[in-house]
Amino acid sequence: MFDSIHEECGVFGIYDPTHDNVAASTYFALYALQHRGQESCGIAVNDDGVFRSHRAPGLVPDVFSSDELARLGPGHMAIGHVRYSTTGNANVSNAQPLVVRHVKGNMALAHNGNLTNSFELRQQYELEGAIFHGTSDTEVIAHAITRARLEAGSIEKAVEQAMPMLKGAYSLVVMSPRKLIAARDPHGFRPLCMGETADGAVVFASESCALDSVGASFVRDIRPGEIVVATAEGVHSIDTHCGGPSGLCVFEFVYIARPDSVIEGSSVHEARQRAGAFLALEHPIQADVVIGVPDSGLDAALGYARQSGIPYGVGFIKNRYVGRSFIQPTQGQREDAVKIKLNAVRSVVEGKRVIMIDDSIVRGTTSARIVRLLREAGAKEVHMLVSSPPFKYPCYFGVDIDSQDKLIACRLHSVEEIAKENGADSLGYLSLESVRKIAKNAGCGFCDGCFTGHYPVEPPAATPKDKFEEKISK
Amino acid sequence: MFDSIHEECGVFGIYDPTHDNVAASTYFALYALQHRGQESCGIAVNDDGVFRSHRAPGLVPDVFSSDELARLGPGHMAIGHVRYSTTGNANVSNAQPLVVRHVKGNMALAHNGNLTNSFELRQQYELEGAIFHGTSDTEVIAHAITRARLEAGSIEKAVEQAMPMLKGAYSLVVMSPRKLIAARDPHGFRPLCMGETADGAVVFASESCALDSVGASFVRDIRPGEIVVATAEGVHSIDTHCGGPSGLCVFEFVYIARPDSVIEGSSVHEARQRAGAFLALEHPIQADVVIGVPDSGLDAALGYARQSGIPYGVGFIKNRYVGRSFIQPTQGQREDAVKIKLNAVRSVVEGKRVIMIDDSIVRGTTSARIVRLLREAGAKEVHMLVSSPPFKYPCYFGVDIDSQDKLIACRLHSVEEIAKENGADSLGYLSLESVRKIAKNAGCGFCDGCFTGHYPVEPPAATPKDKFEEKISK
Amino acid sequence: MFDSIHEECGVFGIYDPTHDNVAASTYFALYALQHRGQESCGIAVNDDGVFRSHRAPGLVPDVFSSDELARLGPGHMAIGHVRYSTTGNANVSNAQPLVVRHVKGNMALAHNGNLTNSFELRQQYELEGAIFHGTSDTEVIAHAITRARLEAGSIEKAVEQAMPMLKGAYSLVVMSPRKLIAARDPHGFRPLCMGETADGAVVFASESCALDSVGASFVRDIRPGEIVVATAEGVHSIDTHCGGPSGLCVFEFVYIARPDSVIEGSSVHEARQRAGAFLALEHPIQADVVIGVPDSGLDAALGYARQSGIPYGVGFIKNRYVGRSFIQPTQGQREDAVKIKLNAVRSVVEGKRVIMIDDSIVRGTTSARIVRLLREAGAKEVHMLVSSPPFKYPCYFGVDIDSQDKLIACRLHSVEEIAKENGADSLGYLSLESVRKIAKNAGCGFCDGCFTGHYPVEPPAATPKDKFEEKISK
Amino acid sequence: MFDSIHEECGVFGIYDPTHDNVAASTYFALYALQHRGQESCGIAVNDDGVFRSHRAPGLVPDVFSSDELARLGPGHMAIGHVRYSTTGNANVSNAQPLVVRHVKGNMALAHNGNLTNSFELRQQYELEGAIFHGTSDTEVIAHAITRARLEAGSIEKAVEQAMPMLKGAYSLVVMSPRKLIAARDPHGFRPLCMGETADGAVVFASESCALDSVGASFVRDIRPGEIVVATAEGVHSIDTHCGGPSGLCVFEFVYIARPDSVIEGSSVHEARQRAGAFLALEHPIQADVVIGVPDSGLDAALGYARQSGIPYGVGFIKNRYVGRSFIQPTQGQREDAVKIKLNAVRSVVEGKRVIMIDDSIVRGTTSARIVRLLREAGAKEVHMLVSSPPFKYPCYFGVDIDSQDKLIACRLHSVEEIAKENGADSLGYLSLESVRKIAKNAGCGFCDGCFTGHYPVEPPAATPKDKFEEKISK
Repeated sequence: MFDSIHEECGVFGIYDPTHDNVAASTYFALYALQHRGQESCGIAVNDDGVFRSHRAPGLVPDVFSSDELARLGPGHMAIGHVRYSTTGNANVSNAQPLVVRHVKGNMALAHNGNLTNSFELRQQYELEGAIFHGTSDTEVIAHAITRARLEAGSIEKAVEQAMPMLKGAYSLVVMSPRKLIAARDPHGFRPLCMGETADGAVVFASESCALDSVGASFVRDIRPGEIVVATAEGVHSIDTHCGGPSGLCVFEFVYIARPDSVIEGSSVHEARQRAGAFLALEHPIQADVVIGVPDSGLDAALGYARQSGIPYGVGFIKNRYVGRSFIQPTQGQREDAVKIKLNAVRSVVEGKRVIMIDDSIVRGTTSARIVRLLREAGAKEVHMLVSSPPFKYPCYFGVDIDSQDKLIACRLHSVEEIAKENGADSLGYLSLESVRKIAKNAGCGFCDGCFTGHYPVEPPAATPKDKFEEKISK
Repeated sequence: MFDSIHEECGVFGIYDPTHDNVAASTYFALYALQHRGQESCGIAVNDDGVFRSHRAPGLVPDVFSSDELARLGPGHMAIGHVRYSTTGNANVSNAQPLVVRHVKGNMALAHNGNLTNSFELRQQYELEGAIFHGTSDTEVIAHAITRARLEAGSIEKAVEQAMPMLKGAYSLVVMSPRKLIAARDPHGFRPLCMGETADGAVVFASESCALDSVGASFVRDIRPGEIVVATAEGVHSIDTHCGGPSGLCVFEFVYIARPDSVIEGSSVHEARQRAGAFLALEHPIQADVVIGVPDSGLDAALGYARQSGIPYGVGFIKNRYVGRSFIQPTQGQREDAVKIKLNAVRSVVEGKRVIMIDDSIVRGTTSARIVRLLREAGAKEVHMLVSSPPFKYPCYFGVDIDSQDKLIACRLHSVEEIAKENGADSLGYLSLESVRKIAKNAGCGFCDGCFTGHYPVEPPAATPKDKFEEKISK
Repeated sequence: MFDSIHEECGVFGIYDPTHDNVAASTYFALYALQHRGQESCGIAVNDDGVFRSHRAPGLVPDVFSSDELARLGPGHMAIGHVRYSTTGNANVSNAQPLVVRHVKGNMALAHNGNLTNSFELRQQYELEGAIFHGTSDTEVIAHAITRARLEAGSIEKAVEQAMPMLKGAYSLVVMSPRKLIAARDPHGFRPLCMGETADGAVVFASESCALDSVGASFVRDIRPGEIVVATAEGVHSIDTHCGGPSGLCVFEFVYIARPDSVIEGSSVHEARQRAGAFLALEHPIQADVVIGVPDSGLDAALGYARQSGIPYGVGFIKNRYVGRSFIQPTQGQREDAVKIKLNAVRSVVEGKRVIMIDDSIVRGTTSARIVRLLREAGAKEVHMLVSSPPFKYPCYFGVDIDSQDKLIACRLHSVEEIAKENGADSLGYLSLESVRKIAKNAGCGFCDGCFTGHYPVEPPAATPKDKFEEKISK
Repeated sequence: MFDSIHEECGVFGIYDPTHDNVAASTYFALYALQHRGQESCGIAVNDDGVFRSHRAPGLVPDVFSSDELARLGPGHMAIGHVRYSTTGNANVSNAQPLVVRHVKGNMALAHNGNLTNSFELRQQYELEGAIFHGTSDTEVIAHAITRARLEAGSIEKAVEQAMPMLKGAYSLVVMSPRKLIAARDPHGFRPLCMGETADGAVVFASESCALDSVGASFVRDIRPGEIVVATAEGVHSIDTHCGGPSGLCVFEFVYIARPDSVIEGSSVHEARQRAGAFLALEHPIQADVVIGVPDSGLDAALGYARQSGIPYGVGFIKNRYVGRSFIQPTQGQREDAVKIKLNAVRSVVEGKRVIMIDDSIVRGTTSARIVRLLREAGAKEVHMLVSSPPFKYPCYFGVDIDSQDKLIACRLHSVEEIAKENGADSLGYLSLESVRKIAKNAGCGFCDGCFTGHYPVEPPAATPKDKFEEKISK
C-alpha cells in the first residue's frame, strides 16, 4: 500500500465518426484508467488531420480543466494515456501520447509496457543519426514505426513491419490522420481490448472499465500479436504476428486491473475472489473473521470467507481522499503514518482471531504496520494470507516492483521468518499452481516471471533502465 | 450519492503541552474528518498567546501545503475545522475557525451544528451595535460568548453563561490564549468526543477516527450540555447545562460518520451492519446476492447478508479518485454520468436476483440510475432496500437535506410509486422503530425529526437560512 | 527602491445607473491604482441590494480572473481597494473592502489612511461587547458608523455622526444598498476625488488616473471633511466637518501618486519637475548630465535639467518585469542584486560628472548600491540630490516608512556623513520651504510631519500598531 | 504597443568552473533578457554530465520558483532561453532549451533566429527516417549537428560541419557534457556576445545586459560565422565560416534590444537617441514639446529634443504592471482600452504643439488611439515621427512582424494617407539612409530587408512557416 508495486500505464483510443467530442470521451476513459498511472497523463485529438495535444504531470481531473479540454478542440479521433514513472524520470519529455510530425503523415502514440531491447535499438538508431528527447520506450517505438513507414505503403503496414524489431511488452494505440490502430505484442503481456458504441464509435482501451465509462460495450480483446485498424471504411485486423505462445501478466488479475474489468474473458473481481478461495483450500485456519486490506485485498477476503464459512468483516477503513499529495508526518508522528490512510475497525476485530488478506508483500514494512494496527485494535490472533506467491524476481515487462535487495522474500529465507518480521501469528502465500488458475475462463498463457524467474522473452542484459539518466562523459 | 445529503462540519482541537507541532496534528485530524465537509477548511494555532490561522476553500491536502503549515508556526494548542456549505455561501468570511481579537483575550472558535435562533440573536446584537462579516452561526456564537465574557471571570464562565442564549445544535471547540474548551449543546445533536495521547495531550474531535489519526486514545464523549476545559493545570468539566433529554442525530449512524468511529459507545460500522440485519428481518426477500451502494451502503448489505444467509457480493466499483472536481459530461454523455463514478461488476450480478442496499433516497434520480446500471449488467431482479426511513422533513440542526418539494418521499405517496419511478422490482425502507435501535450501546436519545417531523427543539419560524444573501433594501 | 517607503492603499467607487458592468470598471480602476498597494485587493459589487465580494492577496490581474469577475455578477454600484501591508498582517481578515451585513442595511467600506485613536476606540468597543476579526482600522470605522447608524436616519447621517469619533487620516468609500458615499477626514491627509462619465456614472477614486482608466472625467476633489453621497436622485454634499486647516500629505506629490494624476488642482508630474527645478536653484552643480533614479526620480531630474541647462540623460534601465516575486540572489550574487532590477547605461555616464536624483533616502543601502553602479559604469563624479527633505520622523497617517533607528537621516548627523556612506561626491536634499511649494496650484495646507515631527493631529501614545499580533495572555 | 512586433528569442550560457549555482545565474540572466520573449522559458543545467532541465510557458519569475531552481540542482554549466511564439505554437514541445540524449554524448541547445531552409532540411531528414516532435527550427539544428557528430571527432567539429547546411539566422548556445559552445550564423543576423566574471566564468548571451545581471564584464561580440568553445582548458575560437558580408538586424537597435545593451560596440540607447537626432534633421517641426511613446520611443524623443532644442517632456505614463495577462475590456469600455496601459499627462501636452515619437507603426490602430489620447488631453497639434522607415516586407530571420496585408505601410499608398488615418497633423519616418547610421561604431553590415525587401540570404519559397500545423492528410 505504501511501499507497493507501481502500475506503469494505461492507454485509450477512440474513433467516433458521428460525434466530435472525443476529447471529453478520452477524459472520462482516462479517469476510469487512473489506477494504472497517477503521475502524468495526456490526450491527443485528431481534428481531420490537425493534431492537438496536452500532457502534464498530475491526475486526470487536475491536468484537464474544462478550459484545457476546450483548447483540444473538436475531432473524431483521439488517444490518451495515464502514466506512472519513478521520480527521476517524471519529466514532460516522457509524458504521452507522443506526437510525431512527419512528411509521411502525423502520428500519435500511447504505449503501455516495456521493451527489453530498447537500449540496443536506441543505440542503433542514434548511431544512424537519430536523436532522442526523453528516455521512454515510446520514443524508440515511434522511431521503429517511422523508419518502416518510409518504405511501407500504409501506417498499418509500418506497424506490422516494425513489430519484429520490438522485443518485450507493448500494448499500443497509434493515431494517424485517418486511422486509429491498436497493436499488442505477440506475447500479450499487457491487456488491450476493443469496444464499440451504439453510434458506431470504435474504442480501444487497456481495460474494459474504460469502455463502460464512455458507454461502449465490450467487443473482444486484441489478440497477442494482432494489429486492429479502424478507419472510415470499418475495422480490419492484421494477424501475421499472432499464434505464438501467450504470456499475459498474471499480476493484472492479482493487483493491477480494476475489479470491474474483464480481461481475456475473465472477470478481475471473480479472479481475486477465486484467489481467496484457493487460499482457503491451501491454508485452512481456525478464525473468527476474515478481512481484506483495502482495496485490492477485499475480493480475496470475500472469496476466502465464502469458501471457509468464516464470516467476512470490514476490518479497515481507508481514507477515501487518499491519492492526493499530502505532507509527510514528522518524526514524532511517523509511527502513526499508516493510520492516516488506514484505520482498523475495533468492533470487528476486538477479541477475535483474524485472517487478514493482502494481494502481495513487497518490502514488508507496511505489512508489519498493518498487523500492528490490528493488534492495537484488540485482535487476539492475526493470520496473514497473501493472494499471490512471493515476489522474488524483477519484472521486465512494465511493472515497477522494488529492487531485489529490498524484497522481503529475497531478504529472508522462509515464510516463518517473514511472519516473524511482520508480527503475524502465521503467514501463507498462494501457491504458484493456484495463481495460474485464478482467471477461470482465460484462454491465454501467463507470465509469472516475478514469482519464478522464468520469462517468456529473454530479459535484457545488465543494462540499467536509468542508464540515460546517469553521467555520460564525452 | 450525487444528489445526496451534505454533511455540515467537523471540528478538532488539541492541547499538547510536550510537543509544538500541533499544526501538523490538526492537519492529520482534519484529513480524517474530511468526509464531514469538503468545501473549506482551516486551522488556528496558538503560540503562547499569539494566534496564527489559515482557512480557505478546498480539501485539506490542497489548502495546507507544507509551506502553509510552516507559516502557522509552532504552538501547543490548535483548533481546526472542515466545512460544507452551499455554493452561494462559500465565501471566506464564513470559513472557520473564526479568530476574534479582543481586549479580554483572543479567541478562536470552530463549530459544527446549526442554531435555530441565530436570526433573532443576530438581529438583537445588530440593534445593539454589533456588526457581522459573514452569515454563519459561528459569528453569532462568538458574539454571545464575547458579551458574556465582559462580565464573566473566565472564558469558560463566559461559555457557560452564553449557552442558554443559544438554541439548537452546536458542538464547539473554543481556544483562548491559555485554555482549550469543548462544549456540546444540551441535546447533543452533533457528536463530540475527547481523547488523550500517551504524552498527555488532550484532544477533542467530532469523531473518534480523528483521535486515531493523531495517535490519541478515546477517553469519552463530551456529554450533552457539558463544557470541558483543558489547561496546563489539567482537565475539568462544567455540567450545569447537563441532564436534559438528549437527541443525537440518528443520521450520524446511518450515513454521516465514518464507519471506524465510535459514537456514544456504539460503533458506527456495527450500527450500519445492524441496520442491514433489521432490514433482513423486516424485508425478507428471495434473492441470489446482496450488494451495497458504496460507500455507506456496504455495511448494511453485509448485515443483511449475514442475517439472511444470502451471499454478500461486491456489486459496484466506485472510482477511487471521486471527490476531485472534474468536468461535467456533455449532453450526449449525460446518461452515462453515473458510470464515471460507479460501475457495476457484471460477473457478480449477471443473471441474478439482486438485493441492493443504499443508506437513503433523496430525490430518487440517482437511485434510478443505479438500478439501471444493474439491469444493464444483467441483473434479473433488483430489489432496493434503504437502511433508514423515508426523508420527509427538513433538518434544522446541521444537515443539509434537499428542499422538501424535491424529496421523492414527499413527492410520491407510496413506496410502490417510488419503486416504480426507480425502476426497482421492489423497495423497502427500514422502519422508524428499527432505526432507533441500530446504535446498540448508545445510552442517549435520538433526534429523528427528518423522518417524523418531531424535533427536540422547536424549529425556527419561517426564516430562510439564506435571508442574508437576499436583497436587503434600505 | 528596495528598502523604500510603502504606500498604504487606494480606494475606488462607482455608481453607474446605466450599465451593470461595474465589476469590470472597478477592476480597471484598481489596475490604475495598483502602485498604491500591491499586497492584496478586493472588489464588492452591489446588485440591487445583494452584495457580492472577493478579496485576496496578490496583484489585481492575478486576483481577478475573468471567471472571478463573472462570479461578482452584474450591478450598478461597486467599490474596490488595493492594499499594502507588512508581511505579518497580510491575512485575509484585513483585506478590503470590508462587507458588513446588518439589519439596518448592508454596508461595504474601503479605506485609505490610518487612525490615530483606533486602539482606544477598539478597546472601548470591545469593552462594550464588540468583536474584531482583524487588526485593520477599517473594522474600527465600520463599528463607529454602525453604532451611529442605530440612531441616525440614514447611512450618510451615520457617517457624519461617526466622523468626530475618528482621529487621523481616512479617505473612505462606503456603499449601502442604495447609496455610494465618499468621505475624507477634516485634514484631508489622503487624496480623494470625484469624476463622472458621459453616461452619468459617478466615480470616486484616490487618484485621478483611475478616473481616466474608466473613461470618466475629473469633476473635483472631495474637500477635507466633506461627505459626498451619490444616489439615484443625484449627488449631494454634507460639509458640516469642513473648514478646518488642511494637511494633505506632501509625500503624495513627491513619491506616492502616479505622475499622471492631478491632486488638489496640481499635476503630480509637474510638482516633481518643480521639485527638480528647486533642487537646481538650491544645489547648483557643475556637471555633464542629469539622470533620475526610475521611476519616481525621473521627473525631478528632468526639472533639474531644464532649470540648469545641463543635459538630461537616461542613466538607468529598470527591468520592466520588476514587481513580480522572484528568488533572492544567493550569497555570492548579493553584490549584484541591484543590477537585476536596475542597470546603468554606460554610454550615458562614462567619463561624465553625473547628477543623480532620487525622491528620498530611507536606509541608505540602496542609494549606496546605485551610486556604485554609476561608478562601475565609468561615472567620473556622482552628485546625489534628493527631491525631498530628510526623513526623520514616523508617519502616523497611512505611509509605512521604516523604523526610526534604521533611517539614515536619524542614524547619521550630517549630510556629509550620509554622502560619505553613500559613496557620493556630494549630496543635497530639497529644503522644507521648497517642498511645500512644489504643488503649484494646490490651495490646501500640507502635512510634512515626516520631515519636521510636527503633525496636524496629535500622534497616538506609544501604542504599537502591531500590538494585536503580540502575545496576549489572559 | 498592442499590435506590435514580437521579438523572437534570447539565449544564454554559462560555464563557471568555481561555482555551482549556475541555475540561479541563468535565472537572473533570463530575467534580464525577458524583453526578448515572454511566452515560455527554460533552463538546462549540466551537473558533470547529468543534464537536468525545466521549461514551461510563462515569464521567468513565474516558471522558476526557488523550488524549481533547487530541483535543477548544482552544476558548473547551464544554458537558458526565453521565447516568444504565436499562440498556435505555444506548446511545450517547442520550448527550449532542447535536450537531446545521444550515445555520442548528451547535448542541449538554445537558439535565437530563424532558418530559411528548415522545411527542406526537415523533409530530407524525415525521408531518411528522422522524427520530429515539434515545429521549431531548433529541432532541425539538433538533427544537423547530431548527424555531423556521428563522423566528427568532437562536438565543436560537428557544429562546424553542420553550419553550411543551415541557411538563415541563428545565434546558438550548445552545451555538451564538457563543453559550452556559442555559434553565430555567417551573416550575424542576431546578436551574441561573450563575457567573463572575475572568477573566470565564461558567459554567452544575446545581449550584454544579461552579462551585467550576473556580474560578468563584456569581452567581445561573437563574430558572424564564428564558433567559440569554452572548456576546462580555456576558450578557443573556430573561424572557418567567418569573413563573409555581415547583416545584423537593424531593428535590434531600433526596438528589440534593451537600451543598456551594447551590440557590435554600439550602445543601443545611444543608437536610439541618434535616430531621434536624425529625425530632427530630416523632419524639423515647430513645436512646444517632444514626447516619446514608452518605452522604446523615449530615447529617440530625447535625441530629437536635444538636436532641435525643443523641450523634452514626459507625455505618457505607462502602467508599470503591464505585461501581466488581464481581462479584456468589454464592448462598452473598448474605446478606453489603450488608457488602461497608457495615460497622457495633461499638464505636459495641454494647449501645446506636440511632437510624438514612436519606434514603428505596424497596423496603425494603436497609433491612432495614442494620437487620440493626446488630443483628448488637450494637445493643440500632434506631429507623429517614427524612428525607423516604413515596414513593407516580411522578416525571415527571427522577428514576427504582422502579415503584409495588415501592415499600414502596405495598405495605404502615402505617408499623408497614413497620417490621416492616424489622426496626426503630420507624420514622418526616418529615412533608410539614416537608420543605417544610427549605430555609430558598429563595424558590421545590416539587414534592412523589412524596409527594402532586399535580404542578405535568399528568402524561403512560399512555404508557410506554420505548414506543420495545417491539415496533413495521408
